[in-house]
Amino acid sequence: MAISKEADSLRALYQSWTDQMVANPGLTIANLRSMFDEWGQPALEPENVTYKSDHVGGVEAIWALPVGADAKRVIVYTHGGGFAVGSADSHRKMAGHLAKVLGVTACILHYRRAPEHPFPAQIEDAVAAYKALLAQGFEARNILTAGDSAGGNLAIASVLKFRDLGLPLPGAVIAYSPWLDMALRGKTLETNAATDALVGKPILEAMAGMFLGGATDPLNPLANPLENDFTGFPPLYITCGGAETLQSDSESLAAKAKSQGVNVALSVVPGMQHVFPALSGRAPEADQELARIAAWYRAL
Amino acid sequence: MAISKEADSLRALYQSWTDQMVANPGLTIANLRSMFDEWGQPALEPENVTYKSDHVGGVEAIWALPVGADAKRVIVYTHGGGFAVGSADSHRKMAGHLAKVLGVTACILHYRRAPEHPFPAQIEDAVAAYKALLAQGFEARNILTAGDSAGGNLAIASVLKFRDLGLPLPGAVIAYSPWLDMALRGKTLETNAATDALVGKPILEAMAGMFLGGATDPLNPLANPLENDFTGFPPLYITCGGAETLQSDSESLAAKAKSQGVNVALSVVPGMQHVFPALSGRAPEADQELARIAAWYRAL
Repeated sequence: MAISKEADSLRALYQSWTDQMVANPGLTIANLRSMFDEWGQPALEPENVTYKSDHVGGVEAIWALPVGADAKRVIVYTHGGGFAVGSADSHRKMAGHLAKVLGVTACILHYRRAPEHPFPAQIEDAVAAYKALLAQGFEARNILTAGDSAGGNLAIASVLKFRDLGLPLPGAVIAYSPWLDMALRGKTLETNAATDALVGKPILEAMAGMFLGGATDPLNPLANPLENDFTGFPPLYITCGGAETLQSDSESLAAKAKSQGVNVALSVVPGMQHVFPALSGRAPEADQELARIAAWYRAL
Repeated sequence: MAISKEADSLRALYQSWTDQMVANPGLTIANLRSMFDEWGQPALEPENVTYKSDHVGGVEAIWALPVGADAKRVIVYTHGGGFAVGSADSHRKMAGHLAKVLGVTACILHYRRAPEHPFPAQIEDAVAAYKALLAQGFEARNILTAGDSAGGNLAIASVLKFRDLGLPLPGAVIAYSPWLDMALRGKTLETNAATDALVGKPILEAMAGMFLGGATDPLNPLANPLENDFTGFPPLYITCGGAETLQSDSESLAAKAKSQGVNVALSVVPGMQHVFPALSGRAPEADQELARIAAWYRAL
């Protein structure tokens, strides 16, 4: 699969992380957090976006405020990193690009991370932030949830939790390479194992272990949204790479939600790695995907 | 010395780095670079500042563009990190705050780092960027150089190099906790050893070794600006913390430059750690220093 030179830089970054983890099994969670914060390196700065550090519903957050954006609309963005690593800062540019192309603002959550805070701390933080935004006057239909990898799970699971709580639901949900199945049953875990430069069963098992904390069933329908019911779920856009081991999670989600009446769009981009919109502004594959998402959102 | 709770968070961050380096002597330069990129965590996002990824004179850079800033004025910002770690990204917010308070733009250089690129690669990159800005139409008097720690050295040494090259000199130079003496002769290396949570002789010796590459004399006047002549140097603002081992470098620089006729301001803030403007937007001590720098710049 021919991919751009720029897109290949993400594969190289992931390979460097894999190599570091193999070379030094003694890396601590602190070491891994600083390493995974390099996730912010591939994206270029989205131009004409300002930022503000804040707390929203008690949750630390960064606002991305594109110049000219509709200030009544906001993405609640939950970053990836297996619920344990990654940060609002590592995903600032990625979320900023998404907000800019949609013409909305973004509130990027620095939610509590595992293992110090296992499930459901992350969902609780998303709920607290969502309630605070509603209290600030945002209309639910003008809120989107979005996230990548484990944060894609949260962008979906938090909406299922909002539904359980009887809260009005957001207008749309966007997931980049969501990691959904804590039981690791997807067939691409095997069939894409040779092409995915970062994600494989060992790292997923380690992260699921920290997230579930030995107390939560891997089939709990809020930890594993594939086990939930999607009736009444908002319009859902899913994108993932065709080189990644978690492709099956995106495909299973799309099939299930569609069968339950959800407006679903699924975009599998050949040759791309996990969370390839990390290349926003740098690689044509990411920018083309952002354009497709914007067209989909405008047409809702 | 009573310091704010917010300021103490920088000491705690530095202590965590020191603890990690002690606990795991096998940390590679890649591990150390990702750890030191946490330097970006303490500063809050400066509001109303946009960014742009660019290359300037062939050097990778991030522009910080405060809304309403004088677009004819620019800080060439060189980040700290012993010439080996740190990045434009880790210092984006710190430089953004400085640009905003001065009402100017900033061009934050991601210069080549040691040990892959020893002295004088860093100065060459600063010269290339400066020449490119002059070629773009910036007037020298509307350019400032600024930087912290090793980047404070570069903000000074690059101007000494501009002078050697016969280039017009920038309008002002600002140094946060500059590390100047590659021969490590400052008395505060001993007298502040117990209060500085990060910088001591071992780390400085390691970084000087990478920077000098075994080929450059520690007294080379472009690697060690304390050995240079400051006649004709632009107005110079120096700030450092009273708890840091490199306080002597700031004091020696101020004394030498003043004795050679330079307009020098020196601000030593009691109790503060190395590069305490990393706390910009978070700690009152940093914001008060920014206000003093702005008043000084406006009065030039």
